[in-house]
Amino acid sequence: MEYVKDIVWKPGMGVRELVESLGSIGFQATELYKAAEIFFKMKREGAKVILTFTSNMGTSGLRGLFAQLVKLGIVDALITTVGAIEEDVMKALGERFYIHRFSADDVELHELGMNRVGNILISNDSYARFEAFITRFIDELEVRKLTVSDFLRELGLRLSDENSFLYQAARRGVPVFCPAITDGALGFHLFMARERHPDFELDVIGDFGKMVLMLGQEDRKGVIALGGGVSKHHAILMTLLSGGADYAIYITTSTQFSGSMSGATTSEAKSWGKIKDDSDSVTVIGDATILFPLIAFYTIERLREEGLLG
Amino acid sequence: MEYVKDIVWKPGMGVRELVESLGSIGFQATELYKAAEIFFKMKREGAKVILTFTSNMGTSGLRGLFAQLVKLGIVDALITTVGAIEEDVMKALGERFYIHRFSADDVELHELGMNRVGNILISNDSYARFEAFITRFIDELEVRKLTVSDFLRELGLRLSDENSFLYQAARRGVPVFCPAITDGALGFHLFMARERHPDFELDVIGDFGKMVLMLGQEDRKGVIALGGGVSKHHAILMTLLSGGADYAIYITTSTQFSGSMSGATTSEAKSWGKIKDDSDSVTVIGDATILFPLIAFYTIERLREEGLLG
Amino acid sequence: MEYVKDIVWKPGMGVRELVESLGSIGFQATELYKAAEIFFKMKREGAKVILTFTSNMGTSGLRGLFAQLVKLGIVDALITTVGAIEEDVMKALGERFYIHRFSADDVELHELGMNRVGNILISNDSYARFEAFITRFIDELEVRKLTVSDFLRELGLRLSDENSFLYQAARRGVPVFCPAITDGALGFHLFMARERHPDFELDVIGDFGKMVLMLGQEDRKGVIALGGGVSKHHAILMTLLSGGADYAIYITTSTQFSGSMSGATTSEAKSWGKIKDDSDSVTVIGDATILFPLIAFYTIERLREEGLLG
Amino acid sequence: MEYVKDIVWKPGMGVRELVESLGSIGFQATELYKAAEIFFKMKREGAKVILTFTSNMGTSGLRGLFAQLVKLGIVDALITTVGAIEEDVMKALGERFYIHRFSADDVELHELGMNRVGNILISNDSYARFEAFITRFIDELEVRKLTVSDFLRELGLRLSDENSFLYQAARRGVPVFCPAITDGALGFHLFMARERHPDFELDVIGDFGKMVLMLGQEDRKGVIALGGGVSKHHAILMTLLSGGADYAIYITTSTQFSGSMSGATTSEAKSWGKIKDDSDSVTVIGDATILFPLIAFYTIERLREEGLLG
Repeated sequence: MEYVKDIVWKPGMGVRELVESLGSIGFQATELYKAAEIFFKMKREGAKVILTFTSNMGTSGLRGLFAQLVKLGIVDALITTVGAIEEDVMKALGERFYIHRFSADDVELHELGMNRVGNILISNDSYARFEAFITRFIDELEVRKLTVSDFLRELGLRLSDENSFLYQAARRGVPVFCPAITDGALGFHLFMARERHPDFELDVIGDFGKMVLMLGQEDRKGVIALGGGVSKHHAILMTLLSGGADYAIYITTSTQFSGSMSGATTSEAKSWGKIKDDSDSVTVIGDATILFPLIAFYTIERLREEGLLG
Repeated sequence: MEYVKDIVWKPGMGVRELVESLGSIGFQATELYKAAEIFFKMKREGAKVILTFTSNMGTSGLRGLFAQLVKLGIVDALITTVGAIEEDVMKALGERFYIHRFSADDVELHELGMNRVGNILISNDSYARFEAFITRFIDELEVRKLTVSDFLRELGLRLSDENSFLYQAARRGVPVFCPAITDGALGFHLFMARERHPDFELDVIGDFGKMVLMLGQEDRKGVIALGGGVSKHHAILMTLLSGGADYAIYITTSTQFSGSMSGATTSEAKSWGKIKDDSDSVTVIGDATILFPLIAFYTIERLREEGLLG
Repeated sequence: MEYVKDIVWKPGMGVRELVESLGSIGFQATELYKAAEIFFKMKREGAKVILTFTSNMGTSGLRGLFAQLVKLGIVDALITTVGAIEEDVMKALGERFYIHRFSADDVELHELGMNRVGNILISNDSYARFEAFITRFIDELEVRKLTVSDFLRELGLRLSDENSFLYQAARRGVPVFCPAITDGALGFHLFMARERHPDFELDVIGDFGKMVLMLGQEDRKGVIALGGGVSKHHAILMTLLSGGADYAIYITTSTQFSGSMSGATTSEAKSWGKIKDDSDSVTVIGDATILFPLIAFYTIERLREEGLLG
Repeated sequence: MEYVKDIVWKPGMGVRELVESLGSIGFQATELYKAAEIFFKMKREGAKVILTFTSNMGTSGLRGLFAQLVKLGIVDALITTVGAIEEDVMKALGERFYIHRFSADDVELHELGMNRVGNILISNDSYARFEAFITRFIDELEVRKLTVSDFLRELGLRLSDENSFLYQAARRGVPVFCPAITDGALGFHLFMARERHPDFELDVIGDFGKMVLMLGQEDRKGVIALGGGVSKHHAILMTLLSGGADYAIYITTSTQFSGSMSGATTSEAKSWGKIKDDSDSVTVIGDATILFPLIAFYTIERLREEGLLG
């Protein structure tokens, strides 16, 4: 049995010591520490790690950390929605996103050609340059029918930004799955490409097969789900089909009371066999922009200390 | 300027009077009434109405109300995720879902073959019977390449349940869009079908085109988004591409503070041009299982009174 | 075992039928119905009912419903915070509160002398007239030392508004407890009164005794807690000291994950003995301005049908 | 205009660098950094700082940090609810609180004599020993009528625990206000003391005066509100009466949509004049057990670097 311990500041505190201290505070600080420990443990025990995140996290500065985790060999597959793909490309092309306010004058922003995502702004110009890039990219594709993850690998290979998760994933053979590939500006560009190239096709069923075959029943499997929705569900489905996750970390701002996937807990997942009954799993409630760097930095430091970093 | 009015019970109060009384209480009750008024107004003014909902709402008893809204000619397109499709079919096949508890013993449920969604349970047997049905359905499809919405229309035509939204939509020519069609058990069945029929394809890009062409710039357009995620985003995207929504109702349990699509407000949507600057729009915070029946029943009663019900 | 049932609109639906239909939808709609059933049951079985609500609910139009529940003999004690007291008095004096927007320009409102509570505004003038009234009231009090609940009874006796809960409570001998009586504008007026009358005292310890003695171990006891904080905690404490509640309904927008009292569940309360292990209890997540009228109206209708209404 | 920057792990990252990196991620990470900057700024500019927190934060390990902030001369007044008082004393007496799970079997815990607060347990034995201590303490009090803050100072003087905020506050002349002093087990002990000593009184009106007189119109004033309810409201009221806060940090898991004080934003506060129109203020959404150590540690490090730490 563990006890609540008072947290106090000490000179020269590093991130690892901070996260350990949080573990004894109680409430979500304790759950955060559990998540950090589980992340470290899944790597130490050789699990394949599926990291999934929602579009807005690609909008945020977490995107560089996702790329770093791929680069360091910590993550084996990524699953996200199309907004995160678009914005990873934009940033790789040099577009800048602005930090603004939650309580903005949205009509005024519209007139300024600025699109708001919480307290972040993306300009119409960034979208225009993305369109020019993606249009040429599709036109130059040699294959006219490919799975979504192959499409995203080709896309990543065209980029040259260390902080791009598409770039890192393409170079390290880490697949990026995106089960709703048309749900964004990209959907429109794909549609226009089809008008120009009637044989252009993205094969979603083929991608599902690729995803299913990637994980074996005998593999140890870990899921880290930041946010909810389709990307979270898809990661869980992927492990369900290969026997369930051995480790699971859910970070969410939603709760289970409306029955949504976004708020569904690691406990609920056990009823489905999505997560094994005896798994190491935890749900942490809060904004991933704060929680995930703490968890990931702790894990990287622990892995480095134990010589487990590639 | 309106004033707060005390709400008191009166004998024989009907749903319409109840919703009107809620309008003067303040806080979310006032927003709920605004939503009901906007729903009525979008119909009275001849808007095309896009209704979007997340998978869990198909799990719940709201599914019959969605079907009724289609049947009554109130809704022009549906957008949802694949879980709602699967469960609409299961229910049409006679499967029963159980009402249970949020604080369940999930390991025990797993042993009993019961899968939990909040306080609702779906049995493994229901999934098995769904698999048998859908496998035969796909094998009997005459066309081997079709868009997702055509696939779902064919599926609806095979059902015979007044409370099924797929059934009602298929009969009334209302398209059902599902931008992440592989994200569920159906994904696996589609993958197995591909193994048996290598030419079997679902065309997601083609569906996007169909969706884009359905709405014109000159149409008045209304969006009703229950919950968040891909289905909400897709509905908004659909109206963005045809000039933005004139009316919008968002019902969500999420808030905008993590920058998620689920919590994104109707105000934020204006910065994107997703919703017109001078639109009638409202965000109501709460569980759609309670809020949406109140809003929809009010609207149906108002439409009937004014002779606007088909 | 109950099953999910599809909800559909039927002509002439009343509130009772609506609430019953909600019960079979799942998620929070089901919890709402449970709450309505428990409220009815606690009355049918003769429990003493403690209703507690936060300040903002007095700001809203729920205030008239609280008064009606006292008038109908359904509630035996009220517990709230001082804002609700102040605003009940203001409304009884004829002050009007405005319905506005959540996304207001607060600096502009400040310049206009308007104070915002969510989407409701209270004018500085209303506060000024409240001050004049309460100052005279205190100056005319014959007793200079009294418990808080006696002070509030005297206050209620000065009002003449059917929709005032202070008025109804004073006339029906229902005590109103307010454990943080100085936490509002009233605190300042009490302080100024003390300057004029150095012997003026409100006895909080005496009020605690009165509260403790009001409920016996043998009484059946029900708690209805709208919102959280001190008023919720005080109601629970009151029943804990007399053996725990037999019935409990919590309505809250908070969740338990930060360990707050506001989000604490009826389950957690059992660990403390605040609620009996075998009690009828439910936690409903949502805004009380929508949820509580549904629950209370259902209960009133059921009580009337069974001839149990005073 | 600032831009979103990618966050990446670097070897040897300290807390200060971490918090700065969070500032450029967007969403709540950015708000967290703003809060840290405002805390530092209010100290650098000589403001009087009011720190307010809810009962559960006293239950958690944050309690030691509150004590440290008092000890370092960073905080000028504390406002909380009675649970935090009780548990600060218990811990000072050597009682241990257990770290447990949110999804506990509460009936079983009740049988074990364990009381749950989120994922923390307090034993009945700890309450019994608290009762023995507080009973003797009251019996030995020489003055029989005193304000609440004087009562709490006397209490703090009896303790000898560096991590107790009552202890540190008593020694440094920092007042601890508790506007609902009877709302807990202490309420019962005060009531029993009154039975033994009919002249025993706690003067809440007197305490209000003391609080009002502590801050002048000309003082710069900062409020740090962790959680909501009466303690948050009281801190804001205190600054309102002396012209409004110049700096304000709200950390909360609630949102403004139900009109509650717990979710009320720093913007809403401006309509009341509680916070000055041109103040530095921020609302951060999340659990204070994670957020507040980051904010406070950053501030302490900045103050130390600039030689501003006592």
